Order: sequence, then structure tokens, then C-alpha cells
Amino acid sequence: MASTIPESVPAPSADLLQRATAVRQAAMALAQTGDSQRQQALEAMAGALEQDAKAIVAANRADLEAAEHDQLAAALLGRLKLDASKLADAISGLRQVAALADPLGCRQLHTELDEGLILERVSVPLGVVGVIFEARPDAVIQIAALAIRTGNGAILKGGREASRSCQAIVAALHRGLAGTAVAPDTLALLTSRQESLGLLKLDGLVDLIIPRGSKALVEFIQDHTRIPVLGHADGICHQYVDHQVNLDQALRIAIDSKTQYPAACNATETLLVHQEVAAAFLQRAIPAFTAAGVELRGDPAACALGVANAASAADWSTEYLGLVLAVKVVASLEEAMAHIARYGSRHTELICTSNTDTAERFLRTVDSAGVFHNCSSRFADGFRYGFGAELGISTQTMPPRGPVGLEGLITYRYRLRGHGQIAADYGADAGKTRQFRHRPLPL
Amino acid sequence: MASTIPESVPAPSADLLQRATAVRQAAMALAQTGDSQRQQALEAMAGALEQDAKAIVAANRADLEAAEHDQLAAALLGRLKLDASKLADAISGLRQVAALADPLGCRQLHTELDEGLILERVSVPLGVVGVIFEARPDAVIQIAALAIRTGNGAILKGGREASRSCQAIVAALHRGLAGTAVAPDTLALLTSRQESLGLLKLDGLVDLIIPRGSKALVEFIQDHTRIPVLGHADGICHQYVDHQVNLDQALRIAIDSKTQYPAACNATETLLVHQEVAAAFLQRAIPAFTAAGVELRGDPAACALGVANAASAADWSTEYLGLVLAVKVVASLEEAMAHIARYGSRHTELICTSNTDTAERFLRTVDSAGVFHNCSSRFADGFRYGFGAELGISTQTMPPRGPVGLEGLITYRYRLRGHGQIAADYGADAGKTRQFRHRPLPL
Repeated sequence: MASTIPESVPAPSADLLQRATAVRQAAMALAQTGDSQRQQALEAMAGALEQDAKAIVAANRADLEAAEHDQLAAALLGRLKLDASKLADAISGLRQVAALADPLGCRQLHTELDEGLILERVSVPLGVVGVIFEARPDAVIQIAALAIRTGNGAILKGGREASRSCQAIVAALHRGLAGTAVAPDTLALLTSRQESLGLLKLDGLVDLIIPRGSKALVEFIQDHTRIPVLGHADGICHQYVDHQVNLDQALRIAIDSKTQYPAACNATETLLVHQEVAAAFLQRAIPAFTAAGVELRGDPAACALGVANAASAADWSTEYLGLVLAVKVVASLEEAMAHIARYGSRHTELICTSNTDTAERFLRTVDSAGVFHNCSSRFADGFRYGFGAELGISTQTMPPRGPVGLEGLITYRYRLRGHGQIAADYGADAGKTRQFRHRPLPL
Repeated sequence: MASTIPESVPAPSADLLQRATAVRQAAMALAQTGDSQRQQALEAMAGALEQDAKAIVAANRADLEAAEHDQLAAALLGRLKLDASKLADAISGLRQVAALADPLGCRQLHTELDEGLILERVSVPLGVVGVIFEARPDAVIQIAALAIRTGNGAILKGGREASRSCQAIVAALHRGLAGTAVAPDTLALLTSRQESLGLLKLDGLVDLIIPRGSKALVEFIQDHTRIPVLGHADGICHQYVDHQVNLDQALRIAIDSKTQYPAACNATETLLVHQEVAAAFLQRAIPAFTAAGVELRGDPAACALGVANAASAADWSTEYLGLVLAVKVVASLEEAMAHIARYGSRHTELICTSNTDTAERFLRTVDSAGVFHNCSSRFADGFRYGFGAELGISTQTMPPRGPVGLEGLITYRYRLRGHGQIAADYGADAGKTRQFRHRPLPL
């Protein structure tokens, strides 16, 4: 979608409005279901996927053949592929989401405003989430599981290249849901580009848009919708190697942070090295990165220490999503933090130092969603954080921030129960008969 | 601003970028201050406002004279007016914000991912908040207090008609801050329309925009910024009077919800009455509303029972912000809830019923930020909820939702402390030596 982003967004078609309204109504009914009903629905979805496994894998093979015919990039083909083993993993992930604790109905606040006037705040589903994602068809399974576990409807738009796979998956999910307390209408799959654009205009029917794709896609969506967007446009993560440091450890972390999965948003893009250890560190790091297939691009000081390629100004703001790493020599922690403040995307930054005070200053000052000390940036992930599932990663400052699990699909509602109280009776003025107590009650 | 909203938004000027960068840097320093330093800063702000009280009131008188000369509406003049007594109230409110518990540095999550790999999530300031508000100059004091209490910088843009008042207030606040740990640059006042438009393009420098103004203003801002917006475009609140009901109580609540402050977003706009009590209720309600100066507009059934004016289709979606109330007779709780789902703005809805089961169904099903039973809609307010301050009210579904206090200016950051752990070592595959523990630790 990113490659052919249109200038403007059309109003949703009557058909899309009707489908979205059906999802919303199904979601309202879903919000009234109990924990075990939602768990049973996920189990039925898992069972239906297992029954349809052959058809799903066959549909995916057809998508793959068409993609090969269209000469899609190898990385895209890799993401598109859904063989029996990957499908089994996705089904297992769905069952793990079913086993997570119920996030709904939790009382977050409980206050006696006055005698017999009791306020509570309770967790409830968001409503309907719209998800626009790239090739990966297993994302449909993951998102459907997350949405239904949290009591939300979902409108899904997958990449065109995955359309056969997505349709086979959603057909199985609908069949699975048919026998449960959760209506199949809770999940809708959009297939045309026109529909996915109309989705952006469904204010009031869709509560959150989650784009999983390129920076251009995310920014296009942010520019064309009033609906809140959960996503990240950039993951420009930094590693700072302090002068007081275990060099072996810092290098091992540097290799992992860059190469363990370079296409991920939590891989590092820039390495900042304190000038006092730059020579010693780069002497070991340059051959290690070269052996790992990483191209280094350095500032003049780094190049003077052996980095082969010179970095341009653009390198400091580039998310390579591949085996390239920018390297800069800095004079101090302060210079490193100033560089991060200027070029970072507030995703994840890490410091390698043996000085705890230095580390704590970095962790206290750098304003990214994740700030790490002596460990790989690749741990910035919902599964690794222990959330059991990951909806996405947000680089906005507002919550939910960073890796987002189930709580990204949850909001709250205030319930106030009275016995005829009116506002005119409260206050310090003459004639006001009541005062607020604001007494906290047990949760 | 709403009356002359432009078609597009210019890029921020170099001067605005420089000023916003100064606010951001001051905010980063502010984020490092302790609780008592921020409290002392608020006390110094209060003291400076007291010292400058005469100058502020004089500046406000000049604004008022100019506004009268420009023949501004009486309601606007009322909001613009800041006499010695209203100023004293605002200063007292500032001291109340100082006394609120520190919202920063609270550990919200604490997990041992593995031996010696410890994750925590800690509350931190958002960064910089941009506030665009209407005439009321006392809002500057309130917002400055909330921003600094929560460790945030603030870029403020008041209405042109309040410019002298706002400048006098901000001059006092800057003078007060000068002797404290909080830099005066933390607060910036924008004075030109061009600057307030540029504010919308300060992604990366501003983390949240709070518009306090008309629906047209809020929607314009949502359409022209990638920065998250906290606000509400509409407050269309409903009261449903069930057939099992204490009619006197329901009427008292109806009068309060509509008339206690009709310009507020939490005033009711539509009254839904069960057909079984419609005749009895309207027989009392019509004279009571007439006596209170409220114009009723009814559906055909309500008009048949004595409501003088017929409601048009537009009435069900109109926020009157004045003494008008739409009235509809419904056959059931279900019809009432369906009407609310179709026309409501998800702000606050209330049910009057003596049947607890009916009330609980309403509270469980209606998906508005506030759902009330047997009390006035006017309680939907941060002060009345006990938050000590109100940043605004949000009708988005995502948190923060409903009346928002200090927590609307707070986010969190994940800190991960390790001893050289890398992601490649974790997993179930061969060669992976480590497994995650995900053991919860005490908060």
C-alpha cells in the first residue's frame, strides 16, 4: 500500500458502513460475554483452524505462487509464507492468548463521592479496532485472538498478496465462532484498497487504528484519520558504549542488537562510542561486524579508527531495517544523550557501562519508551516483557507506549450510582447543603 | 479561532521551532526535579501571582474594555472577566494542585525476565503539552499548575481577546519560577494565530495537544496534526426515565442535569421517557422546565402529551449548550439504549429507575465514558470525581477517557537492567541456553 499511497481518502461506501455497523453491534454483544465464553470462542477458533489447516496452507501456496510470479522481494515472500508448522505455531499462540487472565471488569478506582453516591472505574473493551497490516497472514490469527480475548470487534485489512490466505483463515475463524457465544460478525476482513481507505473515516464506529507497515503507511494514516492510531513510524534505536565498560560484553550486545533480527524495529541503527574506548572497542568491533555481514558507516573520528565508510548527515536519522550500522565517537554521556534526543525515535536506547551511576543517569534522563542497561535492545518486545502477546509497539509518548499487550485494547468506564443526588446541592456557597467526601473505598 | 479556521496549516516558523525547543529542553530538566522542587515552584508561582494581582486585574480590565468595544457576546465577556476574587480562586486552585500526591516515579510493573534481567515500568511526564483554549485567562493558571506538577513543559495559546490578561499572568509565572529549580522556559505563551497553527506541526517537540474550544476547533485540530489530541468534540448526554421510577426524583435530576450549567458538556441534551410513565412524567416536567426557561422539543408522542415544539431530525444530534432539551418517548430500555448508541457522543448517560436490575443492565451495556444511575449528569467532572484538578474531558474511547486529572499528563517508561544478556540466547530452539522466567516482583 505504501508504494501507491493516494492523495486523499474517500468517504466510506454504504457497504462498508453497513459491515462496520455489523461489527460494532457484534462487538457490543461481545462486550457482555463472560471470561469463559470468550475463552471458549478462542478454543473454537483454534479447532476450526486445525480442521481447515490443509485448505489454509493450500490457499497460502496459491498466494506464494502468485507472489513469485509477480517477483516479490524474498523478505516479503518469507513473511507471506504460512506452512503447516507456522500455522501450528500461530494456533498455539492463539491458545496462549486464551489462557491469559481476563483483562475486563477490573475495578481501577472506587470512591465514595458522598453518602450513597459511589463512583467506580472498571476496565471495558475499546469497542472496534481497525488493523491494516502487511503480507503476514498469521497476523490475522494473532489479532483476531487478541481482539476477542479483550471483548473487541476487529476490522482487518491484509496485504493484497496475502488475500487468499487471509480469506481462508477468516472463513475458518467464522466457522469456529458460529457455534459460540461470540458472533462471527465480530471479525470482518476487508479485501479492497478502497475499503481500507474508507476505514480511516469510520469515526464513531472504529475506536483505534493499528497500522503494521512502513513508515509512509503509518504517517499517511495519521494524516488522514481522526481515529487514534497506535503504531510507530520509526525505530531508530541507539547503543551507547561508555568509557567505563566491559568491552567483550558491550560487543556481544552490539552484535545481538544489530544482527539478531535486523528488520525488526528494536534493532539498533546507531552506535555511540565514548572517545576513550573508541579505539579499543572498534578494533574488536570492526572485524566482528564485518564477519556478521554488517556495513559500518562512521563519523570522521570513527573512520579515522578504521570504519571503512563515511556516514552522511542522513545516516543519523535512517532506520536501515538491514545490516547497516552508523557509528559515532562522542566525548561524553551528555553528548550521547543529546544525539539521542535529536535523532532518536523514542523507541529503545541502551547503555553499556560498568558504572552504575552513569547507567542510572541514562535510564533517568533518556525519554524513550525503553531504556536498557547492559542488555540487548532486542528485548524490547511484548513477549519478552512477559505480556503473553503483542499488539504492536508504540513510539507515541501517550500510553499505551512501547510494546503493547492486551492492555492496548482495553479502556475504562466510570459508573456512578446515586439516590437522587443533584449537582446544585454541592458546594461551599450559601444554600449548598452537601459537601463531597471523596473517600477511597477498597478496590 | 473557530469562526475563521483556515484551509491548511503552515509549517512552524524558525522562531516557533526555537521557542518550542527551549520548552522541550526546560521540560527535560524539569523531569529530573524532585517532588518538593515542583511543589516549591508552584508556591513561587502562587506568590508571584499574588504580588502581581493588581497588574493582572488591570490587564484583564483592558481586555474587557476592548471586548466590549468589539461587542463580544455576554457569555464570552463573563468567561473573559478575571477580577480579584476570581484570581484569588485560581491561585487557591494552584495551591491545591501543589498539594496533590506526586504522580511521577510510581512503579507500575516489576518483573524478573530472567536471573539478573529486571524490567520495571515507571511513571514519567509526557514531555510537552500544547494547549489551545478560549477566552478564559484563569485557564492559563490552571494548566500551568497541572503541567509543572506533573513535570511537563507547556506551550499555551489563549484567545486573542484575552491576550493582555494572559501575558500579565505568564509574566508573573515566569518571575515566580525564576528563583526556583524549574526554568521559566518551561512555560511559553503563543500570541499569534500563525504560531498556534504551527504548534500542530511540532511532532517530536509536542506530545499532546489539548484543545478547549468549539467542536469545529477540535475537529480542525484532529484533521491537521499527527500529535495525539485530548478533547471532546461533542457532549450529547442522555437521560433515560424508566417506567419503574420515582418521578419526583427523576424530575429533580432532569432539571439539574439540564439547567445547573447548560453551557457545560455534561449537561443533558436529550430526555428519553418510557411510554408507560411518559404522560405522568411530562405532566409535571413540562411546567417545571418551562419555569426554568427550558424549551422542549418533542417527537410526535411527546408532542401529543403536551410538548409544544416538534423536534426535527437534527435535534437528536445537537449539543444545544443552552436551555433547549429534546424529548422522545420510547417503548423500552432497549429502544433507549439503541437511541443512545446511534446519537450519543459517548460522554455521559444516565438512567433513572427504581429497578436495580434495569439500572445495572444500562450501566453494563451503554458504552459512554460515564454511565450514571439516579444522579445528575453534572457530576461528570474531574473535581467532583475527586481528582483535585481537571485537565479536560475526553470522549475518545482510548484512555485517558472521561474527566481527566493529573494522569492525563503522565506516561511511563520501561527500564531494563541486565548483565550482558542477549536475545539470541533465549528460546526453545537448539542452541538457546536460556528461558524467560517472567516472575512478578513486588512493586
